[in-house]
Amino acid sequence: MGEFKRLRRKINKKTVKFKDGEAGVEEWDEVEVPRNVKDIFVEMKNTAELMVDLAYSAVLFREKEMAEEVLELEEYLDILNYNLTVRAVLAARNMKEAEQITSILQMARSIDDISNAAGDLAKMVLEEKLHPLITEVIMESEETIGKVVVSPESILVGKTLEELDLATNTGVRIIAIRRGKRWIFDPDEDTKVFPNDILIGRGTRTALDYLKEIARGNIKVMPNE
Amino acid sequence: MGEFKRLRRKINKKTVKFKDGEAGVEEWDEVEVPRNVKDIFVEMKNTAELMVDLAYSAVLFREKEMAEEVLELEEYLDILNYNLTVRAVLAARNMKEAEQITSILQMARSIDDISNAAGDLAKMVLEEKLHPLITEVIMESEETIGKVVVSPESILVGKTLEELDLATNTGVRIIAIRRGKRWIFDPDEDTKVFPNDILIGRGTRTALDYLKEIARGNIKVMPNE
Repeated sequence: MGEFKRLRRKINKKTVKFKDGEAGVEEWDEVEVPRNVKDIFVEMKNTAELMVDLAYSAVLFREKEMAEEVLELEEYLDILNYNLTVRAVLAARNMKEAEQITSILQMARSIDDISNAAGDLAKMVLEEKLHPLITEVIMESEETIGKVVVSPESILVGKTLEELDLATNTGVRIIAIRRGKRWIFDPDEDTKVFPNDILIGRGTRTALDYLKEIARGNIKVMPNE
Repeated sequence: MGEFKRLRRKINKKTVKFKDGEAGVEEWDEVEVPRNVKDIFVEMKNTAELMVDLAYSAVLFREKEMAEEVLELEEYLDILNYNLTVRAVLAARNMKEAEQITSILQMARSIDDISNAAGDLAKMVLEEKLHPLITEVIMESEETIGKVVVSPESILVGKTLEELDLATNTGVRIIAIRRGKRWIFDPDEDTKVFPNDILIGRGTRTALDYLKEIARGNIKVMPNE
């Protein structure tokens, strides 16, 4: 997890008040974008992948707030894509370079297509007309999404996600944390786990079951310790 | 990994000979599709996710054969999508059901969009005009792709992927194996690891480094053993 994770947190939305007193239209305010093409590009790929995971989670758990986050990330990704395109186009000085740079734009478009597909999934949650089969399909896929409640007795408590490195140690990637009434989406490596946190993770069924045992306090040693 | 993994293996392509002696046009032959809506749907989701992983691998390693596999899976997914749509449409008996079934078709379209994006990435490999930056971006993403060579001394040798459960134990999902001159795409859980196999896996950098140490024979015990 790199420094641009934090940039996403700086996105603030402004509620615009119109003359007639009506409010609700939102504008983007102070979006920071990485400076060079590579960092923008990496941020785009990470964002799109997070969006897909969050979108499936939102569908599985019928979580509207999570669906809204996906739609915000979709807008953020559009801004990244615009910035990438401007910088990439500017860099071409001859035919060979132009052809290679076109491959960057093609890949950016694929990433954008994936993010749009995630956005469409998120919209389904807001429409509230999901077929029950959809839940089963997400549950039974090779990679699925799981909810894990952290018991106060768990060895996870008080450690940061970097210390825990759950991706390597359990095969589960944490995509969001529910703490009381608050969501933490795409938590940082210095995010600490608290008792009663609900971790939302992506992984195989076996990996999620394994993390569940650790979170319940039934397994008291992390692998590689 | 379920029973429909194997169905994919049954896809055979037929080379059609035309009157003028020219060959090369391929047709689908004997594609088996799961029988019920849920199984088709699960297979679609798994296939699209595999396609994305394989597409990034193909781009990273400039592997044309892998890119071709992605394009074949794209056609397979179109067939699945068609079968899903027919069955889903047939199931609607009233307005409420029709609305819910529409959500199935929407999700299927999102999955199809993702698979098309993967197909577009794969086509870039065949066009051979990739910018060097693309490699860096895939390498530096949160989830990346890695190549791991299995030493004859490694504890991986002689075990099946089910026994090893690398997804849980190392956080790496194996998406392909290179054995001599042959590729095994989307290996089954009963696929055995042989000495000198090259495993292509998706995971974080740390997870891939960890698997590399196991594959080199430097780590002699699997976690959870």
